[in-house]
Amino acid sequence: MRRSESYLPVPGEDKNLDGDFNGKTRNDESMPMKTLYASDGSLLHLPLGPYFSDGQRRVDYVLTYGIQKPSAIRRQSSKLSDNGYFHRLWRSLSSRSSRAPLQLKEDPEVAATEQQANYHEDDKRFKREEFEQNLQEMGLELEKDEGGKIAGIGFLKIHAPWAVLCREAEIMKLKMPTKQVYEVKQGSNLVEKIRLFIHKVTDPLHPKVGPKRPEDVKSLSLPFSKEKQHLFDLSDRDKFFDSKTRSSIVYEVLKRIRWTRPNYSLGITSLLANGVYTSAYPLHDGDIDGVTAEPNDRKLLFEEWASYSVFYKYQPIGLIRKYFGEKVGLYFAWLGVYTQMLIPAAIVGVIVFLYGCATVDDNIPSMEICDPRNNITMCPLCDSVCSYWKLETACGTARASHLFDNPATVFFSIFMALWAVLFMEHWKRRQMRLNYVWDLTDYGMEEEEHYKDHNRAEYELRVAEKTMRQDQGAAKDEKVKLTCTDRMPAYLTTVVMMSFMIFITFVIAFGVILYRISIKTALHLSTYPAARSNIRATVKTTAAIINVIVIIILDEIYASIARWLTTLEVPKTDKSFEERLIFKTFILKFVNAFTPIVYLAFFRGRLVGRPGKYLYVVGSYRMEECAHAGCLMELCIQLCITMLGKQLIQNNLFEIGIPKLKKLLRKRKSELTSKQEEELHKTLKRYEKDHVLGPFVGINPEYMEMIIQFGMVTLFVASFPLAPLFALLNNIIEIRLDAKKFVLELRRPIASKVKDIGIWYNLLRGLSKVAVIVNAFVIAFTSDFVPRLVYQYTYSPDGTMHGFVNHTLSYFNVSDFQNGTEPNPPNFNVKVCRYKDYREPPWSNTSYELSKEFWAILAVRLAFVIVFQNVVMLMSDFVDWLIPDIPKDISFQIHKEKLLMLDHFMKEEGRRRDNHNHDGYTSPSSGIASPHSRPTFHTRAGW
Amino acid sequence: MRRSESYLPVPGEDKNLDGDFNGKTRNDESMPMKTLYASDGSLLHLPLGPYFSDGQRRVDYVLTYGIQKPSAIRRQSSKLSDNGYFHRLWRSLSSRSSRAPLQLKEDPEVAATEQQANYHEDDKRFKREEFEQNLQEMGLELEKDEGGKIAGIGFLKIHAPWAVLCREAEIMKLKMPTKQVYEVKQGSNLVEKIRLFIHKVTDPLHPKVGPKRPEDVKSLSLPFSKEKQHLFDLSDRDKFFDSKTRSSIVYEVLKRIRWTRPNYSLGITSLLANGVYTSAYPLHDGDIDGVTAEPNDRKLLFEEWASYSVFYKYQPIGLIRKYFGEKVGLYFAWLGVYTQMLIPAAIVGVIVFLYGCATVDDNIPSMEICDPRNNITMCPLCDSVCSYWKLETACGTARASHLFDNPATVFFSIFMALWAVLFMEHWKRRQMRLNYVWDLTDYGMEEEEHYKDHNRAEYELRVAEKTMRQDQGAAKDEKVKLTCTDRMPAYLTTVVMMSFMIFITFVIAFGVILYRISIKTALHLSTYPAARSNIRATVKTTAAIINVIVIIILDEIYASIARWLTTLEVPKTDKSFEERLIFKTFILKFVNAFTPIVYLAFFRGRLVGRPGKYLYVVGSYRMEECAHAGCLMELCIQLCITMLGKQLIQNNLFEIGIPKLKKLLRKRKSELTSKQEEELHKTLKRYEKDHVLGPFVGINPEYMEMIIQFGMVTLFVASFPLAPLFALLNNIIEIRLDAKKFVLELRRPIASKVKDIGIWYNLLRGLSKVAVIVNAFVIAFTSDFVPRLVYQYTYSPDGTMHGFVNHTLSYFNVSDFQNGTEPNPPNFNVKVCRYKDYREPPWSNTSYELSKEFWAILAVRLAFVIVFQNVVMLMSDFVDWLIPDIPKDISFQIHKEKLLMLDHFMKEEGRRRDNHNHDGYTSPSSGIASPHSRPTFHTRAGW
Repeated sequence: MRRSESYLPVPGEDKNLDGDFNGKTRNDESMPMKTLYASDGSLLHLPLGPYFSDGQRRVDYVLTYGIQKPSAIRRQSSKLSDNGYFHRLWRSLSSRSSRAPLQLKEDPEVAATEQQANYHEDDKRFKREEFEQNLQEMGLELEKDEGGKIAGIGFLKIHAPWAVLCREAEIMKLKMPTKQVYEVKQGSNLVEKIRLFIHKVTDPLHPKVGPKRPEDVKSLSLPFSKEKQHLFDLSDRDKFFDSKTRSSIVYEVLKRIRWTRPNYSLGITSLLANGVYTSAYPLHDGDIDGVTAEPNDRKLLFEEWASYSVFYKYQPIGLIRKYFGEKVGLYFAWLGVYTQMLIPAAIVGVIVFLYGCATVDDNIPSMEICDPRNNITMCPLCDSVCSYWKLETACGTARASHLFDNPATVFFSIFMALWAVLFMEHWKRRQMRLNYVWDLTDYGMEEEEHYKDHNRAEYELRVAEKTMRQDQGAAKDEKVKLTCTDRMPAYLTTVVMMSFMIFITFVIAFGVILYRISIKTALHLSTYPAARSNIRATVKTTAAIINVIVIIILDEIYASIARWLTTLEVPKTDKSFEERLIFKTFILKFVNAFTPIVYLAFFRGRLVGRPGKYLYVVGSYRMEECAHAGCLMELCIQLCITMLGKQLIQNNLFEIGIPKLKKLLRKRKSELTSKQEEELHKTLKRYEKDHVLGPFVGINPEYMEMIIQFGMVTLFVASFPLAPLFALLNNIIEIRLDAKKFVLELRRPIASKVKDIGIWYNLLRGLSKVAVIVNAFVIAFTSDFVPRLVYQYTYSPDGTMHGFVNHTLSYFNVSDFQNGTEPNPPNFNVKVCRYKDYREPPWSNTSYELSKEFWAILAVRLAFVIVFQNVVMLMSDFVDWLIPDIPKDISFQIHKEKLLMLDHFMKEEGRRRDNHNHDGYTSPSSGIASPHSRPTFHTRAGW
Repeated sequence: MRRSESYLPVPGEDKNLDGDFNGKTRNDESMPMKTLYASDGSLLHLPLGPYFSDGQRRVDYVLTYGIQKPSAIRRQSSKLSDNGYFHRLWRSLSSRSSRAPLQLKEDPEVAATEQQANYHEDDKRFKREEFEQNLQEMGLELEKDEGGKIAGIGFLKIHAPWAVLCREAEIMKLKMPTKQVYEVKQGSNLVEKIRLFIHKVTDPLHPKVGPKRPEDVKSLSLPFSKEKQHLFDLSDRDKFFDSKTRSSIVYEVLKRIRWTRPNYSLGITSLLANGVYTSAYPLHDGDIDGVTAEPNDRKLLFEEWASYSVFYKYQPIGLIRKYFGEKVGLYFAWLGVYTQMLIPAAIVGVIVFLYGCATVDDNIPSMEICDPRNNITMCPLCDSVCSYWKLETACGTARASHLFDNPATVFFSIFMALWAVLFMEHWKRRQMRLNYVWDLTDYGMEEEEHYKDHNRAEYELRVAEKTMRQDQGAAKDEKVKLTCTDRMPAYLTTVVMMSFMIFITFVIAFGVILYRISIKTALHLSTYPAARSNIRATVKTTAAIINVIVIIILDEIYASIARWLTTLEVPKTDKSFEERLIFKTFILKFVNAFTPIVYLAFFRGRLVGRPGKYLYVVGSYRMEECAHAGCLMELCIQLCITMLGKQLIQNNLFEIGIPKLKKLLRKRKSELTSKQEEELHKTLKRYEKDHVLGPFVGINPEYMEMIIQFGMVTLFVASFPLAPLFALLNNIIEIRLDAKKFVLELRRPIASKVKDIGIWYNLLRGLSKVAVIVNAFVIAFTSDFVPRLVYQYTYSPDGTMHGFVNHTLSYFNVSDFQNGTEPNPPNFNVKVCRYKDYREPPWSNTSYELSKEFWAILAVRLAFVIVFQNVVMLMSDFVDWLIPDIPKDISFQIHKEKLLMLDHFMKEEGRRRDNHNHDGYTSPSSGIASPHSRPTFHTRAGW
């Protein structure tokens, strides 16, 4: 084994951090890269923490690369191959278990280690050397380690010295806390008292993340600047920039540095994609368990956040942000707000459901259906094999239907529409508050743009190819970029594939319908009475389960297809890639998840035709009817099973079950006992431990899952008031599951700074808008709410619901059956059967035509949709307008901060002038108006 | 007459502007304020430009105050009283002609000069002296002039020396252009060529505002900083900050300075409100005409912008912004975009109208109505006095109706909905482009907040009062502010008054309806045949004109009531005042303008009842019916008259006519001949000339006018396709009218920096959303579009429109008339008359009930509304999503600018290091990736 020393050992380097470089040797390009070997035993005595071998300089970033092991070394230790195996297994496990359909960067390690032609290796090493030289020129310090426990992998550890940190912090305009603190006053005395009281009551719910800075004090943050170093608290320079900031600074530098040739240049992303480097990651702060683990943020996060035992607590968002950066912090903050907001929704949903349960016995329509004295003969539900049936047999369904189809449901839909708006508003305010606390308030759009505007490797490659091709012909100084023409084939493929996949979804949904129809007919034929009695329930449930399984399978397939299509399009930047991928995935997943539900809600039972003139599809399949009390019940079952199924299967099976299974499998196959493995793990260095973790693939898959769930909760909430409850239960698990994944199973992500959740907010907004109209239609058309209302207020002779069931049923003369469709054997007692529709009776002039009632009720239904949609939209907009986006106290604080800054500036000015000693001018700050300062403050200047 | 010298004469002051003050004397608080008198004649030899009496220092701001003329002086010159009169007349004229319902600051001059009790005068002078002392402490230089041509007014001229400008520019983070310029490349070669071509073609349309900087080059702007002075082009320090910037800097300082007492302090706004100062304004750049006028921006603006002769040209937005600041610049840019966007809308509107004209002869329904062979007898239009009438007499109306009620109208509504979205998007992009050109891209929300968060005088006064009251009782360190309780009476008054005024509007609208009904009946009674034949037209037109006049009168009344109500509420800041005022004014003006129109569109003819069972209001007034071909025609006339009337009367009469009339009146009364007056005007100094102009009162009234017009254009466009044309013609005049007002008649506004048009954008968005639903209802319910469609596709025997008229008319048996309502004298030939409704015939079982057709058509109408609303909304959202808010080239430029900044920064870094000379380190900038730079750039570092 060999251990490399740093390129620039400077072990006793006096950390003279005055902003000037004093390492002249760094520029010495002729310095040979020494790689020294050390004995195996010495490794254990080195600090395992994230430091260079001198134990002083922190490792801020790690690049790994494949090395061709000298065969001599390979022979020396047979253990190494085990390690290699161990490593590969780990790699495949962690990359699979992260189950990332939106994975942004492929893990090229396996491919890279397999392709070991000598020539390529040399070329790569050459590129690496040059690239590393450039790194050093930018002031970064490097150290190599090619002989660790993990064979075949070399580690390049990068350390950013103080001077580099300062320079980059200034370029990135990083806002750092100054020494100056100010009081955060939360409002008037009463408000303050209430706040304190609430804080006291909810104290057990707050995570214990160490001795917090008192909440009433915040330090004034200023963009870091070398000239103004005296403003910042630099007592401990090593801790002034925390590990997250250090690694993101190094990453910024890395992104800027390029390996260049006259014709093209490669950035770090391209180098990664080409396998010159195999991976790049910052290090975790430390270990979670084991005796060696000193207290660190990661451990704290594990204990106070990533554990099921603290499921009832708030999340330590500040710490999450400190450790993972703003983007991840915002995701969890959002998820927290969403989950919190689900609590009232779930409670109201349960109340609505209970109201349904309580009133089921007083419900006149279901009483009428259940009353055998009414003795209503219904027309058969299928051709020939089905017979006439008595309405009272539908009693159970009718009663169950009432649970979900009652006036409270209408209220609940409106409530949920407003809930969605409130959720958005609440989130916007929370986001603003976080922005304030995290000093992002004047972090502008352009800075964000700047972070993200980094070309993708594939794009650079394609441009390079195009440049080569064009070099022969065209003018050279034209800027080469990919035009629409270049991308046309990819776009066409996308359109075709997307349409095809949506078509597939429809076909499958249609297949399930046919399954339902045929099974129903088959069961009718069966002579076994138990089967017949349970026909409806059986068919519904099996069909729903099939749907769920299909949805889950297609979800996985669609995710990879969307990825593939996006790769084909060669987007320019990661941001554009992300957007296109999200767009495609969203459409596909959404169509996939909602096709069966939409069919049930709006089409089922509507395309039936009427007795004697049924509608047939695919030859002789008669379209299915709804049970008497509307399709709402079936919609409800479908939604229930979809939500439960998706969550149970995706969360428990995919995210918990499969990893466990794999672990078991690995244990059986591995030649190491668990003890040995543990031992090995202990001796691994920090960057080696992190290397075996799964790569971070972005948080978009997590968002996507939540958005689909949000869709389920809001879109069809009129038909299933328990949806929020289900979602709530799922999310409580989801938070901790995701937390565990981030803390334990994945490499630390590079902190990316964002102000908001971006496109997801727009999707949420879009969904909640669509939800209003969908709910309006569900109430108007799927439920019997409107017909009941119309009957009660216009047709009912006594203003009650008595006679409603009779009113909804039309008459059919059995002699009008088409040949071959009448029940077989015929029942000659029945002359007239009833069916659910508003049509003229057989004895009318215009028999079987749609009746006046039909049109009147249709008009009312449509009017209801218009009124509902516009009223709810208006209310939403009103709520939106009423609640200011920026909480009052925050806008007050921001204003105060500005004034402080001004004051500070004027003092600075005064001091500078005093130093120059030109005059005895009094400090101009005395004349500044601070709107809320007490007047006494001004007397100095006034008098 | 007396002329004051500056407090700090320093006449030969060497303008050593190295950022340090060297005027030690300024701090000498004991220096007496010398006010020297000079002979009258010397005045004329002083420069008339905006300079101190030394002719060197620029007057950046002027404060005026009332002075008690020593009676000796008054006797000396009898001319002075003329001047006083002249002045007062001017004042009243200019303040009236500005016609500003949203006027932000009352003009307290008249009140102030009248209240001349000696005690008050002394108190004021005392306050002034102290305040001015504070001004000097902040480094401003002052000069007084109490003996100008305008008697009774003292002028305090303020000059900001270089040091103050620098300091404030740094505090305000003013972005100033650096020496470094960069090329603005507009895209690929082809795009560039097209752009050049377009520019060439439209060249005559571009205003000639001097030798412009080549458009392809933009200088990199950086926040001004004293340390980085070397970056900026300071070759001419006097012109580095332009006059607009200088005055806004002084204003910023003024806002900060306060006159303080232990218990309360007064800012400049309070001092103005208390009459300590009578007005505050920056100076115009120079004269517009006359021999003395050297070229200046104001003159240029007058020639190339504020003149009807250049109506066809683009506006010089850059110059407007340079002269008036961003807020005014944005208003005119917005108005320009709106007017430009109206051109295609007007063209399409005219085409739609022409299509209606062209197809009027092929229109089967109107042919059927006009055909005397059909011989349809209609039921009488009023009780007793009216008789039966033949349908063919409505021929003219029916034909005219077709002009506005044809399928093209539906298309036009959809077009206009999308047009509105496109307009928004276009504006957003334009705004972004302007932000980029004006260096506002990272001008954050907080800076804006900061500018606006300045307490209003009234608020300060109320708080001071409250403090005094509380001092006796409550704890002292509680921050005093106005709570809801303090404002409750005002809020209550607001609610009551607003409701009352809305009620008034409704009552007046109802009054007009009654007028229409009674006049119609009266005219029917008249035996004069010409009157009878023109009944409808006469009634419609007179009613519409009455409506317009009422609207215009109420508009003025409501504006002042809204102002009064807002003052009652004592809002804290100007921004809050503005918002509350806009909110109230908008509601009142909107209700006022649209009540008659909404009545005509949606209620007229719908609350009629049916023959034999008419609906009566206010005793015996039978509600009016529509003409046969729907109410669309009347709606159209009303809209046409409202738009024309409002624009003609408000623009021409109020904005052009009345000022002219007043001028005439003034000429007759004035003892001065026009020659003398001109002579006097010539000898006035700049600040005196500006003093006689009207005060700037904000641009909200202008916005409000345009928003109401936008409402007219979009809301009921389905009924009046010529609305965009009318609006276009009006706006072409409006732009120049407003321009003239700003350049000629008003004092120069203080430049305020804003990024967007704020609340107006939201109002526009809201209006265009409401427009979709309103248009859907107009098409579905007011026009006959849906019934025609339904007839053609379901009821028509041959699929054509033949028989449609007959289908829409129901039958009435004349024997069913209520007693006393049948026509008198009775016509015994008529057994059955027809009326427009879908009801069962008298011979049906359910006679006169709404028929099945009615319900079917109603359902289709409602379905149309739903489909129209949602499709148009979807399309709008799609267009919104499709068009990026930031134009691609701009986002590219912004990115490029960022890179340049980075590069610049790194170079700076390198230079600094070189100066320190610690090592021979190469410039790190060589390693920076500039995504679009040619690769050769990088070879230096790579090799």
